[in-house]
Amino acid sequence: MTRSLWIDAAGLPRTIDQTLLPFATREISLDSRQACAEAIRTMRVRGAPLIGAVGAYGLALALRADPGDDALESACAGLLATRPTAVNLRWALERVRERVAGLPPAQRAAAAWAECAAICDEDVACNRVIGGHAARLLLAAREADGERALNVLTHCNAGRIATIDEGTALAAVYRLQRDGVPVHVWVDETRPRNQGAGLTAWELAQRGIPHTVIADNAGGLLMQRGQVDAVIVGCDRVAANGDVANKIGTYLKALAARDADVPFFVACPLASIDPGAPHGDAIEIEYRDPREITHVQGFDDEAGAMRALRIVPEGTVALNPGFDITPARLVTALVTERGVVSASREGIATLLAGTSPDR
Amino acid sequence: MTRSLWIDAAGLPRTIDQTLLPFATREISLDSRQACAEAIRTMRVRGAPLIGAVGAYGLALALRADPGDDALESACAGLLATRPTAVNLRWALERVRERVAGLPPAQRAAAAWAECAAICDEDVACNRVIGGHAARLLLAAREADGERALNVLTHCNAGRIATIDEGTALAAVYRLQRDGVPVHVWVDETRPRNQGAGLTAWELAQRGIPHTVIADNAGGLLMQRGQVDAVIVGCDRVAANGDVANKIGTYLKALAARDADVPFFVACPLASIDPGAPHGDAIEIEYRDPREITHVQGFDDEAGAMRALRIVPEGTVALNPGFDITPARLVTALVTERGVVSASREGIATLLAGTSPDR
Repeated sequence: MTRSLWIDAAGLPRTIDQTLLPFATREISLDSRQACAEAIRTMRVRGAPLIGAVGAYGLALALRADPGDDALESACAGLLATRPTAVNLRWALERVRERVAGLPPAQRAAAAWAECAAICDEDVACNRVIGGHAARLLLAAREADGERALNVLTHCNAGRIATIDEGTALAAVYRLQRDGVPVHVWVDETRPRNQGAGLTAWELAQRGIPHTVIADNAGGLLMQRGQVDAVIVGCDRVAANGDVANKIGTYLKALAARDADVPFFVACPLASIDPGAPHGDAIEIEYRDPREITHVQGFDDEAGAMRALRIVPEGTVALNPGFDITPARLVTALVTERGVVSASREGIATLLAGTSPDR
Repeated sequence: MTRSLWIDAAGLPRTIDQTLLPFATREISLDSRQACAEAIRTMRVRGAPLIGAVGAYGLALALRADPGDDALESACAGLLATRPTAVNLRWALERVRERVAGLPPAQRAAAAWAECAAICDEDVACNRVIGGHAARLLLAAREADGERALNVLTHCNAGRIATIDEGTALAAVYRLQRDGVPVHVWVDETRPRNQGAGLTAWELAQRGIPHTVIADNAGGLLMQRGQVDAVIVGCDRVAANGDVANKIGTYLKALAARDADVPFFVACPLASIDPGAPHGDAIEIEYRDPREITHVQGFDDEAGAMRALRIVPEGTVALNPGFDITPARLVTALVTERGVVSASREGIATLLAGTSPDR
């Protein structure tokens, strides 16, 4: 098994530069706090769980260089500033800091290192549990003729390269593959950053899972015509009432799924639930660089190089919201590492109370 | 007023090569049947009404060269074969053929030429009527605070360059501009061919109408957050029950409009109504070249040239449906040159019976 973040022969964390995917697979060594910070800031690593783990290793590497109290605090602050709104980054840094703060400096680096390894192992274990639950739901969504492949539609990349391994939404697909269930994935291109066309298509090809890339515009037609058994997506944040903030365009797929009576599942690690947001309207939408709309990144096969092309007239104004809100009423179920619950205030309260709703 | 198709000083039809838009504005002279056929086949001209008019001029030019019966029939057949499924092309060619078939050969070229001019003038007049009706509907959709600009969302290009002038969906916007109503257009990028980002943005900029390009994924969020007063789109074909076939992705916007209680209008010349299709499921969906999904066309500002970039891993499979079906129940009204009707069997029957439903 190859993880997205692993320890190399030199004993250092290593990952793949996702800014070059799917056109080149370049490994980078995360050999210092600075290297970790740079990888997060420039989005060489992305996906909340992976960002958190890389941040944690950045802190551990900082403590190898200087395990003193001042260094600990400044490393935490410096790493957090790389993506200040990333919830998992803050969580992972806090976790390592709390683990080592009470120790004598000489013991801190080793303890931090062990904590990083635990964070990674727990992420994979959590995703495997989510994958198991979601795989059962997807199987149940397939119509009676169990001979053909199960058709799953996904948006953006909630896959293994957004996590340490397995992914959240795609964990179900990998589980079905291991169980020998034929599965085919409709991959939304996911404009404007094309995480579907680039990253999801790449990682599914790596694992030999049949898939077809479609324009974001096409999913509605496919659902109308019975070509989708179920939709499964990840999430960036889930409000206390079950509203789901996820990559822009998720909401449109949820509407189409409801209209065509296709189940719409959200893979939702507990860490993504924000009890402080009473509903989706309370979640602030991030507006990103309009250049992501006005220009498209891709590979020039003739020149053998990545380039950006402008696709609008010069001077065109664009708006680039990064996320939308899928109302809880459109979500068939939230799939968490503690089991499957309805996207509702009651469902989420049950989860957070720690009583296992496993079903 | 500059039309998309006009007669130049040499007395020949002239148009703009839309394959180069929005990056270059190159005029081409349509000086022969062959030039007209090539322009249609290579999509230098697109949009049903414009294709029809260019085809008609191709026939008139053929008759200048040889007005005999054999030449008439072979020109009709040759021009029709350039885009065999284009309803307007067949209609326009038939209209010219019927006009001239009974005339002595010596009179045919001139009669055909006059018929072409009439086709163009009627298209503009039809679109102006549609624009007037639709402008009233859009104005009524704006909330009470009439001070701010009216926010209209559109998908694909149903504008002046898809017609001789005015456009169908955009005719309403041009009418509002002439009436001094501040209007702002949200322009869906419209993957995979980017007719919104390229053509709609270009023609709105030409006429000085404020607009903002967004990813196709973004319209749902904008409607959720009250930033869209109304949606208006064109159509490729409307079934007898009011189901609308239009550019892929239209259906998703109609779902979002319904969910947010935003009116969804379809600009629908009578020529687009297909009484032979009882409902949307009877309309065959065209599947286009997957390369439109796997590659993106754009302009390389550094090199000063248009290019295509690959945006998926090598060998990736893609599916490219060109149209989807918006069920009649999601359409607030059909706006035709005979007035505004509900998208229903009754509404369409009234239209086709010729009784004016003008309201």
